[in-house]
Amino acid sequence: MRRIVILGSTGSIGVNTLEVAKTLGAGVEVVGLSTNRDVAGLAGQVREHGPQAVAIADESVSDEPLKALGEGCPKVYRGTSGLARLAETAGVDLIVNALVGASGIEPTLAAIAAGKDIAIANKECLVSAGEVIVGEARRRGVELIPVDSEHSAIHQCIRGEPKSGIKRIILTASGGPFIDTSAAGMAGVHALEALKHPTWSMGEKVTIDSATLLNKGFEVIEAHWLFGIDADRIDVLVERKSIVHSLVEFLDGSVMALLSVPDMRLSIQYALTYPERVETGLPKLNLNHMGGIDFEEPDRERFPCLDLAFEAVRRGGTSPAVLSAADEVAVASFLEGAIGFGEIYPVLRDVVRAHEPCSAESLKAVVEADRWGRQEASRLIGNTEGESLEC
Amino acid sequence: MRRIVILGSTGSIGVNTLEVAKTLGAGVEVVGLSTNRDVAGLAGQVREHGPQAVAIADESVSDEPLKALGEGCPKVYRGTSGLARLAETAGVDLIVNALVGASGIEPTLAAIAAGKDIAIANKECLVSAGEVIVGEARRRGVELIPVDSEHSAIHQCIRGEPKSGIKRIILTASGGPFIDTSAAGMAGVHALEALKHPTWSMGEKVTIDSATLLNKGFEVIEAHWLFGIDADRIDVLVERKSIVHSLVEFLDGSVMALLSVPDMRLSIQYALTYPERVETGLPKLNLNHMGGIDFEEPDRERFPCLDLAFEAVRRGGTSPAVLSAADEVAVASFLEGAIGFGEIYPVLRDVVRAHEPCSAESLKAVVEADRWGRQEASRLIGNTEGESLEC
Repeated sequence: MRRIVILGSTGSIGVNTLEVAKTLGAGVEVVGLSTNRDVAGLAGQVREHGPQAVAIADESVSDEPLKALGEGCPKVYRGTSGLARLAETAGVDLIVNALVGASGIEPTLAAIAAGKDIAIANKECLVSAGEVIVGEARRRGVELIPVDSEHSAIHQCIRGEPKSGIKRIILTASGGPFIDTSAAGMAGVHALEALKHPTWSMGEKVTIDSATLLNKGFEVIEAHWLFGIDADRIDVLVERKSIVHSLVEFLDGSVMALLSVPDMRLSIQYALTYPERVETGLPKLNLNHMGGIDFEEPDRERFPCLDLAFEAVRRGGTSPAVLSAADEVAVASFLEGAIGFGEIYPVLRDVVRAHEPCSAESLKAVVEADRWGRQEASRLIGNTEGESLEC
Repeated sequence: MRRIVILGSTGSIGVNTLEVAKTLGAGVEVVGLSTNRDVAGLAGQVREHGPQAVAIADESVSDEPLKALGEGCPKVYRGTSGLARLAETAGVDLIVNALVGASGIEPTLAAIAAGKDIAIANKECLVSAGEVIVGEARRRGVELIPVDSEHSAIHQCIRGEPKSGIKRIILTASGGPFIDTSAAGMAGVHALEALKHPTWSMGEKVTIDSATLLNKGFEVIEAHWLFGIDADRIDVLVERKSIVHSLVEFLDGSVMALLSVPDMRLSIQYALTYPERVETGLPKLNLNHMGGIDFEEPDRERFPCLDLAFEAVRRGGTSPAVLSAADEVAVASFLEGAIGFGEIYPVLRDVVRAHEPCSAESLKAVVEADRWGRQEASRLIGNTEGESLEC
C-alpha cells in the first residue's frame, strides 16, 4: 500500500490523481491534500478521501469551508511553508507534486529532505530549479517519477536500459491548437481560442504554453534534468494524434516508443504504482486502423518559443528559471487581455537575453532569478519599474 | 569482449552475424562457425574470421575447400553431433543459433548444458522443442536472447518490466508478398513469386513461411516459450512498412513499441552486445514524415496457417513440433513444384489434426513427433507410406 500526499489536489492533475487513487482502492491511501485558493474544492476532496492533513497555499483565503466540516476537518497548514510541512508528513511514501509554477520548489525540496519519492508534474519546478532538485534527490537517494505524459513515456522507454546506450530523446508534441495557423493569424488570437487544446484537457497556464510550444521547450529542459541528457540530444517532433507520447533512440538505431490513448490518468497511475503496473479499466488504445501515425518537424519560425527554451538551456544557470518566471507573467497578462498572443514571445526573448545567468546550484539564486524574471517581464509589458539582478 | 560460435554461419542470418561481428571489432571474437553443406562458403568465412573450429552438419559433403586452406584450416567437426561439440567449446560466452529447422535442437541443448547463453534465430527449434529448451535454460541459468526482429523487439520492450505487468504481446507482420492477393490468386502462385518478400531478405524456407503467414504463427509459439506468455495473450497485427517490429501492451494500457529500419543486423547486434548498446553505423530510422504507420488485422481466411499455429499450441504437447516438421516437408515440396502454394495449408492442417499430441517435455518425444510429422506430410503429398505414432 502506498501512502501519498498530493500537492495541488484541486488542479487538473490533482483531481485526476485523486480519481486514479480511488480506482487503485486499497493500493493507495491519500494522507494529505493541498490547494492554492480553492478551499471549497479542497473541502469536497476531504469529505471524499479523508486525508489526515491539508494545506492552503494562499494565506489570504478563508479556511471556512474546511472548518464547516466540523469533526471531519483535518489538520490545516497554511502558506508555502505549510505545503512543505505537508510534504514532510511521517509515514508518507510518495509526494505527488501537481502544483503549478515555481511555488512547488520549496515543498519539493522539503519532501526530498524528508526522503520521500516524488511523482513530479510541476514542470516549472524542474525547469527553474532542476539542478538543485535533481542534485538533492540524488544525494538523498530519492526517486523522481515523472507524471507528464512525455516524461513518463521516456521513463518507461528507458527502464532496464543502461544510460550509456541512449542516443537521443524525442519528445512528441500534438502541435497545439495553432499547428496549422499562419503566423499572422496567430498574432491576433484570443485567450479563448488558445485555451482550446486539440487533445489534452489541462490547466490554463499549460494550455497557453502548449499553444506557443513553450510547454514543449520546458519539457526539453525537464527531460534534460530528469534523465541527465544534454539538451542537444533532445529533439521535438509533432505527432498530431497524441498517441505516441515520446520516443527514445538508442545508439544501435533501435527506437522505443510509448503509445496510449491521450489520458493523463495513465501516466499518473504509472507514477503511483511504479515499478508495478496494474489493470484499473483505464481506456485502452485500439491499434487496429487508427489512421496512420506520422511525425513532422515543428515549425520553429511560427513557434519561436520552442527554440527560446533551448537557448535558455544553452545560456545555462538561472536562464531557464528566468524564462519560466517571465512566462508566468506573460501568460497571465495574455489571459487578462493585457498583451496579444504574438507578444508573448518577444517579452520572453527580451527577458532571457537581458539576463546575465547566475549559477543555479543554490535555491537562493533560483528564487532571485525567478523574482527578477517576473519583474522584468512586468516591466516590459508595462506594469512596473525594472531593476538589475546581481548573482 | 564476447567470444561467440555461430551455428549456421553460411545462411542468411549467419552471414549477417559475421558482418555485425566485424563492425563490432574488438568487442567480439568469432571462435567457431558451421555450415550444413556450403563448405566453400565456410572456407571463405574461415579465411576472413579465423575461427579455431568449424563444423559441417551434412556428413556426406566433402571438406576439401577447408583442407585447401592448409595451415589455415581449423579443427573440423562433422555431423549434428559435431555441431553440438562446437557449441560446447570452452571459453565461448554466446552461441548464435542461426540454423534452419529442427536440426538446431541438439546443439542448442548441448550449448545450454555447457552453460552458454544463446542468441536464438532458429525458430523451428523453439517451436518444436520450446518446452525442453526453455526448461533446460531456466535450470542452467542460461539466457536465451532472441535474434528474430519481432522477438528482439519484445525483449527490448519488456526490459526492466515485471512480467506480471504484461497484458499481451502484439507481433507485427509485414503481411508478406500476398497481403493483397485474392484467395484464388494465391492458390496458383509459383515459388518465385512467393520468394519475393516485400521488406526482408531471408532464406527460402522462412520466406515461404512468411508468404503463408505460418512464419508469424511460429513466432507466436516462439514468443509463448521465450516470454512465458500464453498464446491467447499473443496477437498479430499487420504493419506493412516493417518499421514497428512488435509491441507489448501492459495492464495499465501503456503500449511499448520498438521501431527501426527493417535490417536484421540490428537485432543480431542487440543479441551480441546485450545488455549494452553500441553505435556501429547501422542505418537509422528517419521518423520525420515516414508516411504514416498503421496496423490492421491479418486476414485469417486467406491466411489459415496463422490460426493453425494457434490451434497447434492449444492442442499442446508435440503438436507444434508436428506442424513445424510437416511444414519443412510441405515447403520443400512447394519449392520443388510438387505441390501448389494453396496445398500447403491443407497438408499441414491434416497432419496436425491427425496427430494425437504427446507430452513435449522430453527431447525424445519431440524428435519422434518431428519424424512422424515429416512422414505424415510426405504421405499426404504422395511420396511415401504412413505409419502411426505412439507416445
